[in-house]
Amino acid sequence: MAETTAQKLVSEFTGTALLLATVVGSGIMAENLAGGNVAVALLGNTIPTGAILYVLISMFGPVSGAHFNPAVTFAFWLRKEIATSPAVIYVLVQILGAIAGVLLANAMFDLPVLQISEKLRSSPGQWLSEVVAAFGLVLAIFMALRAKPDTVPAVVGLYITAAYWFTASTSFANPAVTIARQFSNTFAGISPSSVVIFIAAQMVGAAIAFWLDRFLAPARD
Amino acid sequence: MAETTAQKLVSEFTGTALLLATVVGSGIMAENLAGGNVAVALLGNTIPTGAILYVLISMFGPVSGAHFNPAVTFAFWLRKEIATSPAVIYVLVQILGAIAGVLLANAMFDLPVLQISEKLRSSPGQWLSEVVAAFGLVLAIFMALRAKPDTVPAVVGLYITAAYWFTASTSFANPAVTIARQFSNTFAGISPSSVVIFIAAQMVGAAIAFWLDRFLAPARD
Amino acid sequence: MAETTAQKLVSEFTGTALLLATVVGSGIMAENLAGGNVAVALLGNTIPTGAILYVLISMFGPVSGAHFNPAVTFAFWLRKEIATSPAVIYVLVQILGAIAGVLLANAMFDLPVLQISEKLRSSPGQWLSEVVAAFGLVLAIFMALRAKPDTVPAVVGLYITAAYWFTASTSFANPAVTIARQFSNTFAGISPSSVVIFIAAQMVGAAIAFWLDRFLAPARD
Amino acid sequence: MAETTAQKLVSEFTGTALLLATVVGSGIMAENLAGGNVAVALLGNTIPTGAILYVLISMFGPVSGAHFNPAVTFAFWLRKEIATSPAVIYVLVQILGAIAGVLLANAMFDLPVLQISEKLRSSPGQWLSEVVAAFGLVLAIFMALRAKPDTVPAVVGLYITAAYWFTASTSFANPAVTIARQFSNTFAGISPSSVVIFIAAQMVGAAIAFWLDRFLAPARD
Repeated sequence: MAETTAQKLVSEFTGTALLLATVVGSGIMAENLAGGNVAVALLGNTIPTGAILYVLISMFGPVSGAHFNPAVTFAFWLRKEIATSPAVIYVLVQILGAIAGVLLANAMFDLPVLQISEKLRSSPGQWLSEVVAAFGLVLAIFMALRAKPDTVPAVVGLYITAAYWFTASTSFANPAVTIARQFSNTFAGISPSSVVIFIAAQMVGAAIAFWLDRFLAPARD
Repeated sequence: MAETTAQKLVSEFTGTALLLATVVGSGIMAENLAGGNVAVALLGNTIPTGAILYVLISMFGPVSGAHFNPAVTFAFWLRKEIATSPAVIYVLVQILGAIAGVLLANAMFDLPVLQISEKLRSSPGQWLSEVVAAFGLVLAIFMALRAKPDTVPAVVGLYITAAYWFTASTSFANPAVTIARQFSNTFAGISPSSVVIFIAAQMVGAAIAFWLDRFLAPARD
Repeated sequence: MAETTAQKLVSEFTGTALLLATVVGSGIMAENLAGGNVAVALLGNTIPTGAILYVLISMFGPVSGAHFNPAVTFAFWLRKEIATSPAVIYVLVQILGAIAGVLLANAMFDLPVLQISEKLRSSPGQWLSEVVAAFGLVLAIFMALRAKPDTVPAVVGLYITAAYWFTASTSFANPAVTIARQFSNTFAGISPSSVVIFIAAQMVGAAIAFWLDRFLAPARD
Repeated sequence: MAETTAQKLVSEFTGTALLLATVVGSGIMAENLAGGNVAVALLGNTIPTGAILYVLISMFGPVSGAHFNPAVTFAFWLRKEIATSPAVIYVLVQILGAIAGVLLANAMFDLPVLQISEKLRSSPGQWLSEVVAAFGLVLAIFMALRAKPDTVPAVVGLYITAAYWFTASTSFANPAVTIARQFSNTFAGISPSSVVIFIAAQMVGAAIAFWLDRFLAPARD
């Protein structure tokens, strides 16, 4: 009855690929159509991203947990709910899926499939933003899982909907997303030189969330 | 207690008609009001379409399954959950309903009821987009049906909300929709010369989804 | 345990007043801020209206049924689920509540509390739009009530979200709303000379929905 | 099994801080990007705020009740569901959390962490707006709690989504929010001179809601 490893990895790959195809594809579409009004473009990027997260977590959650995010897998590993080897494999598959999704988006929009972003994202505020964004995401997942697991797809979709706007970085909050968005030279992209600190900030945020979640629910677990 | 065939066909006809009235009607409204900002127009087309899908699937799902889409009916036929004759009749009724919905939208906006689109949609990226769009739609339906059938109306509404933006074709993902939108010479239209390849791409996407869904859930069904 | 008549009437009054305060208040806000982009203004009118319908039906549904709409009360009367006297009183209270809501919106925006709209709405397409809008609304309510009553707040909120865009009239679909919006000389208003035909069209739409709903579910009720 | 006081206070602090980080952070982002179209900016402020309320109430509701709002705590105190001392401590923690959230938003956007708003909000219409906004919020919470507690996160998120547009004040509806938004000199801010009357109006609205809720449900409680 249980899912096989192959099923879980295909689930993480496909889900992460569709997530990135949406993040980058809607970014390209929005930038193409918005005529320079960046707030309108960000609405056209936010609404599809929030929507697809609800869909993908509903679809793939029962198969693989629908992590789609090394920071989330890292947090489940801190909780000892996933062992080290499967966690590492999850992360690798998420990164591959994410890159595949960006290349697919590039192909759908008749752009060069391989491209490298030149968009610098490197201010202290943006680094703080990534700590906050990943902290909020992981905390939301853990607390919703405990209180009412059925709400996780809506909680994550709506969290990212908010976080695209309330953080200065538009909330990557996901190392696989960060790595993959190097391959989109659009307003959704991120220059390779900005990637490492973003990922470090996300891991810090995830670890703080793990700790706060422990504090808020010690007597229950 | 079971629905009669007449009830099912009226359900597919009415649902598909209201879907197309929304797709095309909101397209006309959005184009009229957006003052040339196409991203704003696409928001005004996306939000109503996603919303009405939730409504129509909630309404008509219990009567006819709320396919509204020959690619979906085709995928259920691949699963042997609908026989060939009823499937063919479903598809014909969906196409008639879709055309009726477009003509209704034209009439509501005091436009010529009969018109033919001149909007070419024929790049490789758009064909790939239709494969991806129909693949994602059918996979989402099948996986949500298995995991939690109550979420199907939200899953489909939000999937199309995302797909309008993440595909270069704005995600027709439905042969009946594709045929009917020939009859709207607005930004929601599609030229007759672009129709056949779109439909072929949609069937390919639906078939891939059928296969991947089998792979992801072999031991359960 | 059952609600008293006074409770039901206060519920219908308060709910309809808050609905109209939202429809007209958000219309004023949107028009003030949109800088002439009418599609943006309509988004700023649509999203609050759909949202408040979910809220108000969730709140007042258990008390009074949350009709807020003479066309809905009329349709329940056709179903013999409300007697003639209570139906007439419901309608009167809905109209009073609706007018109170518009005056409240005018006061909140420091506008003259009493004003009369000069906005003509009188094309055949708009009359057809009101037939379709009320038809879809009443059919959605009846079918969702039968299939899954818990979804009615979401179904109605999302139906109106769509109908604001897919009809040429922006979907009044409600005689109390139509009467009350005479008292707002903004883009949400309607000239007194356009009111009677709108209401007649809405009643026709509601009656058609009553009939189609009977057809789609004869063996169940 | 029950939550400790420390857990409850950390929950109120963290939730209110994330709420304000979203309200002010998305306000800064929206104003930066909207190119002067204030309606687009308000959409970019509204959608994240409504979304994060759903998330935060889902997360923190089971721990502390997720008040995040002295007017809500005041209304529960009127209902004798919270004693005076804990209510006062809740309010203090909410105010501290709210201020922390604004400072966090300022830091994320590389703005001076400490700033004072110069935005006057002092017309009779705005005072009336705050009465209405807090009245609707508290009434919605109480009635949804009685009818179907699971819907409270969606009801509150969608209520505020609507209230941002239907009130002339963009609906602060929360004394902690009002106090904290003094520390943001953006379009989300409020001048210190406008604060006291806003808070008084909010308390009046909450009290009216308490009374009307009693009236609508006497025989049940």
